[in-house]
Amino acid sequence: MLAYASMDKSALEQEFQKEKAHYDFCKSQNLALNMARGKPSKQQLDGVSDLLQAVVNAEDCIVDGVDTRNYGELVGIRCAREYWADVLGCKLEQTFVGSVSSLNLMFDVISRAYTHGLLHSPKPWCKEEKIKFLCPSPGYDRHFRVTEFFGAELITVDMTLDGPNMDQVEEYVKDPQVKGIWCVPKYSNPDGIIYSDETLERFANLKPAAPDFAIMWDNAYCVHEFRGEYVDFPDIIQMCEKAGNPDMVFEFASTSKITFAGSGVAVMAASKANIDHFTKLFSVQMISNDKINQLRHVRYLKDKAHTLEIMQRHAKIMAPKFRVVSEALHRLILPCGFAHWNEPKGGYFVSLHTMPGTAKRALELCKAAGVEMTPAGATYPYGIDPKDANIRIAPSLPPVEELEKAMDVFCTCLKLAALEKLLMN
Amino acid sequence: MLAYASMDKSALEQEFQKEKAHYDFCKSQNLALNMARGKPSKQQLDGVSDLLQAVVNAEDCIVDGVDTRNYGELVGIRCAREYWADVLGCKLEQTFVGSVSSLNLMFDVISRAYTHGLLHSPKPWCKEEKIKFLCPSPGYDRHFRVTEFFGAELITVDMTLDGPNMDQVEEYVKDPQVKGIWCVPKYSNPDGIIYSDETLERFANLKPAAPDFAIMWDNAYCVHEFRGEYVDFPDIIQMCEKAGNPDMVFEFASTSKITFAGSGVAVMAASKANIDHFTKLFSVQMISNDKINQLRHVRYLKDKAHTLEIMQRHAKIMAPKFRVVSEALHRLILPCGFAHWNEPKGGYFVSLHTMPGTAKRALELCKAAGVEMTPAGATYPYGIDPKDANIRIAPSLPPVEELEKAMDVFCTCLKLAALEKLLMN
Repeated sequence: MLAYASMDKSALEQEFQKEKAHYDFCKSQNLALNMARGKPSKQQLDGVSDLLQAVVNAEDCIVDGVDTRNYGELVGIRCAREYWADVLGCKLEQTFVGSVSSLNLMFDVISRAYTHGLLHSPKPWCKEEKIKFLCPSPGYDRHFRVTEFFGAELITVDMTLDGPNMDQVEEYVKDPQVKGIWCVPKYSNPDGIIYSDETLERFANLKPAAPDFAIMWDNAYCVHEFRGEYVDFPDIIQMCEKAGNPDMVFEFASTSKITFAGSGVAVMAASKANIDHFTKLFSVQMISNDKINQLRHVRYLKDKAHTLEIMQRHAKIMAPKFRVVSEALHRLILPCGFAHWNEPKGGYFVSLHTMPGTAKRALELCKAAGVEMTPAGATYPYGIDPKDANIRIAPSLPPVEELEKAMDVFCTCLKLAALEKLLMN
Repeated sequence: MLAYASMDKSALEQEFQKEKAHYDFCKSQNLALNMARGKPSKQQLDGVSDLLQAVVNAEDCIVDGVDTRNYGELVGIRCAREYWADVLGCKLEQTFVGSVSSLNLMFDVISRAYTHGLLHSPKPWCKEEKIKFLCPSPGYDRHFRVTEFFGAELITVDMTLDGPNMDQVEEYVKDPQVKGIWCVPKYSNPDGIIYSDETLERFANLKPAAPDFAIMWDNAYCVHEFRGEYVDFPDIIQMCEKAGNPDMVFEFASTSKITFAGSGVAVMAASKANIDHFTKLFSVQMISNDKINQLRHVRYLKDKAHTLEIMQRHAKIMAPKFRVVSEALHRLILPCGFAHWNEPKGGYFVSLHTMPGTAKRALELCKAAGVEMTPAGATYPYGIDPKDANIRIAPSLPPVEELEKAMDVFCTCLKLAALEKLLMN
């Protein structure tokens, strides 16, 4: 098969008819497949459901003299803080262990910055004439939406193979209206990139004009390798401290993709000053988080070492799915020469860049054939991909057989959309 | 024993010496007793710990085709919404079932009103020149603090035996800056008052100048009788709807004092339009709440009828504690004639009005003798009780023997503070 670029019009036309016929066949099958969200599969969830037996009676609920069934311990129970300090490589006093959702913790940080200000804010962000937020893109739509929700102007920063383009970041932070940046430093969503050591150093050493500039460090995939060995990752909190920016970073993580996506335990990690500041702010809205669930998790996950063992079990389920994606793309898309993508070793996504101007159309075709994908554009601020080229593939949820079908449809749609464009020109 | 009012100075002096001697004796015992917060006792928690066995394996997690372990169902699982609709007497579509904390749901409503506005807000509250909030007092300090946190001016409304003074409320709501009111309609915190039918009618028929006036209806003690029969209570949502004010009320409840204070399930109930509005707003900050815990609760609590049976078990533990409080006050305080209090049949508190100008001093003495109480003033806006007279007694946590000691110390301190004041005049 030739690359589309080297085909003449009649060859393209022929190719189009062939793909169209296959597409119509797929459509006739009334599929209902979903690669839209990074949801764990049933198999993964089943593999960790012993968690539910970690706390089953009254005596189980007592730990370090604390009755987890009652009010109290707003910052989280001690053993849960220890657990997260171990996983993230930070200190116990730099952790605040919450309830189910790290997104909610991130939201609360931005929300509180907006209404009351961060530790070093001259005033609450809602009293600023304008605020801006840096969004390395492709990135995570839910991150961008949080800052958009609070009226920030979203500024796209390019992603490189080393993480966000730090030349751009260092330039943008000279503007005092730029209040922060969203980061997924390990297996970035969706590119699966691990920020390089140089990128980390440059982050820690940023000298933003805004005294309350916040690095929102969503370490969502901190232990989420599905191929190869666990990749150790430096503690950004300590790095920022060493660089004289102790309060600049807020790190987040959760067990959503370790145990249960809907019922895990989330954590915020930051300088002790930030944790103290937020514990005080949070005391207005909550008395305590779900400590029984914290304890259940600590009893089951034990520590970082044991968590990594569990992640190896997940890897055995995840790896074949990413293999299906990779093989389909290699077989069906690579020869056509109009798309490229990453081959991550961890995280939950494959980020594909198709022919510019065809991503939306391709996913429209997918939808009509019963395959749901993350909407095109979702990986860019305001949901608008200026090139209309990036598509996030989330292969974790469907079983392998379904995934094979879904990838077949998806690749056909990519090709159809590209051929339509080429034939229109 | 004579009432203090009828004693002459030398009799008062003698009384003071007697109480002082007893106080010094108490102090020498190095007590550490706590009647500060409405925390369930260990006995109560033990009595409901079978809850932990309601969901213990993978299959248990599936309900109505939903895998509660995964993302989704932001509004709550269907059976949890049904449960709360049953308990509160509202409709399923009028419920949003959250995570652990109703306080957090209340906070989020006020926070979102501040940053984005409610359904009928002309603009977000943060863009208003000034906002005011009505605080029936004595009331719940955490309520008041939420609105204080967002810069509202807190206006004290008097409590009557029928609920908030509705003449005052109706007058205040003519001011468009008055944006809402905090209510605990059944077994009010701390007075234990059940709002009368007339009060409810007047609430439902309020005609506030602010189009986005919000009744924050914290039905925290909706099934929390500890003496006598369950008292049925009308559905305020339907009443507001009938009165042409469908979107004016936000109701809250939780299982914090039914199952576990730290790990229960909270609910917000409101008009469908409000639930839809907030579900959209909440979708920015969360993907879903802890559905496993929701399911655990539904499987254990079943329905309203079964919940009331469980509450009868709690009542057997709570009633003797309230009896200790009542008996101590009757025996030690009533004859002195300087204080009065309520005798609630439900809820978590006894609200005592001691001699004006002596509440702070009495609790200072308590603290020095090792008995911790809710700080004096906490039941009023800004923590300032203009009469320095109201004290909230929370007898649920300590065992009966400790409570007896604590009440002995407490009554002694009330008397000492009163005598000090009388002797100074």
